[in-house]
Amino acid sequence: MLLLHLSDVDEAGWAEQFRQALAPYPVVRRGDDFDPAAVRYIFVWKPKPDAFDGLTGLRAVLSLGAGVDALLRHKALPEAPIVRFVDADLSQRMSDYVVAHVTMHHRLYSRFQADQKARRWSQLYPPAASETTVGIMGMGVLGQDAVRRLQPLGFELRSWSRTPKSIEGVEGFAGDDSFDEFLAGTDILVNLLPLTPETTGILNSSTFGKLRRDRLAGGPVIINAARGGHQREADIVAALADGTLGGASLDVFEVEPLPADSPLWEIENCYITPHIAAISNETSGVRYFSAIIKGHEAGEPLINVVDRNRGY
Amino acid sequence: MLLLHLSDVDEAGWAEQFRQALAPYPVVRRGDDFDPAAVRYIFVWKPKPDAFDGLTGLRAVLSLGAGVDALLRHKALPEAPIVRFVDADLSQRMSDYVVAHVTMHHRLYSRFQADQKARRWSQLYPPAASETTVGIMGMGVLGQDAVRRLQPLGFELRSWSRTPKSIEGVEGFAGDDSFDEFLAGTDILVNLLPLTPETTGILNSSTFGKLRRDRLAGGPVIINAARGGHQREADIVAALADGTLGGASLDVFEVEPLPADSPLWEIENCYITPHIAAISNETSGVRYFSAIIKGHEAGEPLINVVDRNRGY
Repeated sequence: MLLLHLSDVDEAGWAEQFRQALAPYPVVRRGDDFDPAAVRYIFVWKPKPDAFDGLTGLRAVLSLGAGVDALLRHKALPEAPIVRFVDADLSQRMSDYVVAHVTMHHRLYSRFQADQKARRWSQLYPPAASETTVGIMGMGVLGQDAVRRLQPLGFELRSWSRTPKSIEGVEGFAGDDSFDEFLAGTDILVNLLPLTPETTGILNSSTFGKLRRDRLAGGPVIINAARGGHQREADIVAALADGTLGGASLDVFEVEPLPADSPLWEIENCYITPHIAAISNETSGVRYFSAIIKGHEAGEPLINVVDRNRGY
Repeated sequence: MLLLHLSDVDEAGWAEQFRQALAPYPVVRRGDDFDPAAVRYIFVWKPKPDAFDGLTGLRAVLSLGAGVDALLRHKALPEAPIVRFVDADLSQRMSDYVVAHVTMHHRLYSRFQADQKARRWSQLYPPAASETTVGIMGMGVLGQDAVRRLQPLGFELRSWSRTPKSIEGVEGFAGDDSFDEFLAGTDILVNLLPLTPETTGILNSSTFGKLRRDRLAGGPVIINAARGGHQREADIVAALADGTLGGASLDVFEVEPLPADSPLWEIENCYITPHIAAISNETSGVRYFSAIIKGHEAGEPLINVVDRNRGY
């Protein structure tokens, strides 16, 4: 039996699609009449405190989100393996966001938008993509997909990750010892890290001050498409004000929705989107998890299982 | 002997680089003491009316610009073959512009910028690149380079050109008869055509009304990186006002610099840049034309010669 437990999304829609994909396998929702001990899989998004009560027969927790930092903090999280949602559609949408914001900053939008407002015709030629280095933090499925999209555009690429990753055409840096060296050659910093105790607050004043300053007119840029917990928003406000940063694109925030009194809203070269970089698409999500449930019931191992020690 | 005749750019800088690249071959500028009949090559940008006077030994006219529409209207243009500047650096920069503006509109910047100004947190998920079709007008060197960059991003691509072009993964349309069909499946229209009598004013109300309307929230988008002569600016203003177009990016204008009283400056979803999409880089330009001059003097044929009947 599959139990759905989704908050803030269309649970009924997901249930209907799961029923079609898995029939005659039973699919239930909270409030339905079922025996908790018969639940073998639970599909969750923002689970309530009692989400896992009585689920004594659980074989796996299926997470709608690719990021599981919030789920791992659940007080009553069972021992069963956690499967993350990682698929081509989600990666495509995340890369869409990353490429759009990398290229926007690279082409100096803030500068040209200010000129447009002033009706000022002032020619300035952005550097070629081949003269610009994008540094990507996090080289998991999303980071590698971003590489695959940015590489044909001609950008110089470097990566930073917990453990060394060897990817063709990407200069790889790993671990704390090489972080400064990674930053020193980065013009546009893209964060796609998982949120763990080690990466919390990594986008801070000290990090910003180590980025390369002499390539992009206006200064280096940060793009955060991962988690609000990665960033120190007071530091971003200060860095955009004093020129340490030339621009920022933020899809995530320390508190979401971003409070109306946040100073970030009013900063011209800070591009805010309301956590919409990439959504887990119903069709591809149902396809992905249905295949996992069917395979697992048939004796196959689970895929994309979270390492709880690592935190992702 | 090579004569330089460049307006509005650093002619002295180009001359210095050409001298280094071609030495001991003579390189001269207007005002220098030389015999006009000894000039075998002239390198031009915005040539004056008397630019070609007395150049009776001319073997080729070398054009700094990739577009030669203005040069072809020169009243005293000699019979010698015209060589256009087409190289990887120029194509890279043009594609940088195209990709940045395609992805900006695809990710609904105008919508999110308006929300940011209003401090409004309102989630809306842009379509995936794979759900969006970019239609490129013009499949020369620049159009094909844009294809090469946009394809790995996942966009559906179609092209429209004077003569049929077969490019893998691109749905090709050619000629007037297929123009409407091309437009009917296009969400984002990119213009990279040469400016000829046939293409003058092609970005007009009739064209805009035929674009696909149901994919991008806000409506279809045009991006003009070619020539101001391709667009009817009054039609663009009207189409952005009545919703026929959801957005526009214009790097070129009917009159440049764009007059301060143009209504285009004030339209929020019209992104204006001051003809900076792609510049002919000195280093790569000198490398390109030096190789052509040396090769031609050694008996090799010229490359990228303009077809005057075709107009490009």
